[in-house]
Amino acid sequence: MSQNIYDNEIFFEGYKELRNRDDNYNKLLEQPAMVDLLPNLSDKIVLDLACGYGYNSLDFIKRNAKKVVGIDISQKMLNVAKSKSANKNIEYICMDMAEISQFKQKFDFVYCSLAFHYVEDFKKLCEDIFALLNNTGQLLFSQEHPIITATIDGKGHFNNDESGKKVSYTFSNYNQGGIRKTHWIIDDVIKYHRPIGEIITTLAKTGFIIEEVVEPIPKDWAINKLPTIVKEYIKPNFLIIKARK
Amino acid sequence: MSQNIYDNEIFFEGYKELRNRDDNYNKLLEQPAMVDLLPNLSDKIVLDLACGYGYNSLDFIKRNAKKVVGIDISQKMLNVAKSKSANKNIEYICMDMAEISQFKQKFDFVYCSLAFHYVEDFKKLCEDIFALLNNTGQLLFSQEHPIITATIDGKGHFNNDESGKKVSYTFSNYNQGGIRKTHWIIDDVIKYHRPIGEIITTLAKTGFIIEEVVEPIPKDWAINKLPTIVKEYIKPNFLIIKARK
Repeated sequence: MSQNIYDNEIFFEGYKELRNRDDNYNKLLEQPAMVDLLPNLSDKIVLDLACGYGYNSLDFIKRNAKKVVGIDISQKMLNVAKSKSANKNIEYICMDMAEISQFKQKFDFVYCSLAFHYVEDFKKLCEDIFALLNNTGQLLFSQEHPIITATIDGKGHFNNDESGKKVSYTFSNYNQGGIRKTHWIIDDVIKYHRPIGEIITTLAKTGFIIEEVVEPIPKDWAINKLPTIVKEYIKPNFLIIKARK
Repeated sequence: MSQNIYDNEIFFEGYKELRNRDDNYNKLLEQPAMVDLLPNLSDKIVLDLACGYGYNSLDFIKRNAKKVVGIDISQKMLNVAKSKSANKNIEYICMDMAEISQFKQKFDFVYCSLAFHYVEDFKKLCEDIFALLNNTGQLLFSQEHPIITATIDGKGHFNNDESGKKVSYTFSNYNQGGIRKTHWIIDDVIKYHRPIGEIITTLAKTGFIIEEVVEPIPKDWAINKLPTIVKEYIKPNFLIIKARK
């Protein structure tokens, strides 16, 4: 079972504050890239993994999806989703991503924004998603980039030049996959580092056809709203993969 | 046209010395991983891009390939190949990889060890290879890992702890694709940096099915022969991709 940090009250409030900010990475870097990669959702049945506040689930309905099932491990997140992102064609279910093999129905599109790095058994997750997809089904997911999840003991960091400008990034432990405990809002948030080769090969060996691998850079409209560290193109921040059955 | 450093006398001699060493990265890390990924070559027609000394071309014949065409931009390298790796079923041709669209014949397998980072137009290269492959053809290539080619002005480097042990790696400019001039045996060796997402998406959009993406780690037998920096799993060194038509 995956760790349920989002039901932690301090994490929940800290995360809410972060998401409400206008300069957060989700809004300015990850989500614009994900939107570009969305397939035509007209009449599609969608599974939104780790749906959180349900913002994407609701967006899929606005894009004419027939039905969306949004799952999240956190009841507190789902309470927000049910209040802020309710729709008669969305069903919100409290469920760990590790349990999706219990679904009886099939989906045309499986989506996951920034949560696969919380999942311990990536091979099983890929197999479960593959089994849930219709024959022409697609998967789109984002996660923290492996260069960012790599370093054990939180030693990954930017380096400044004499004037204080960020010029490079330092990391380690890239080729050592496994658990990473980090501080993010609260202590001991558990993530799993997997080298990019392992991620893509696992998808390919499951049977997925890789369509696009994206390491997003900011769009022009977002550049001046983002911190310098993102503007400067020093390091990749997110890994986004689109694949089909 | 690609840069022809291998015909530079100083580079040629320096490279020979490097390849003759028992602790070079090719022998201990890249080649063992490439061999693991070779398909069954019985009766296959093979194109060996940037074949250099022809060691791999000859190995493919030993693995029962019907015919191998080895091309290299350097006549000096091909002279070695024709002397040390000659076989009646190998044809060595002095040709830039950028010119392979002139081949009239088709191939079952296209191979390239550590040379795609010298090619400026990767999209054209992918399209040319795709067009040369038979319907069930496969491509296997290795290149320097994008994390290693990323940094402009050679600022990528390891960092030591107080005891002098290498503990991390520093890079920059990852999301800025383009030319990189580096010192490798001689000054101004021209390479092209491409983020990993760009490499894989270009292959996928050309029509290739990605089969495996490998960032090799040393096998047990090689560990004690390799420098500490490779043993420690700090950073990825090579990117290897296997794809099929």
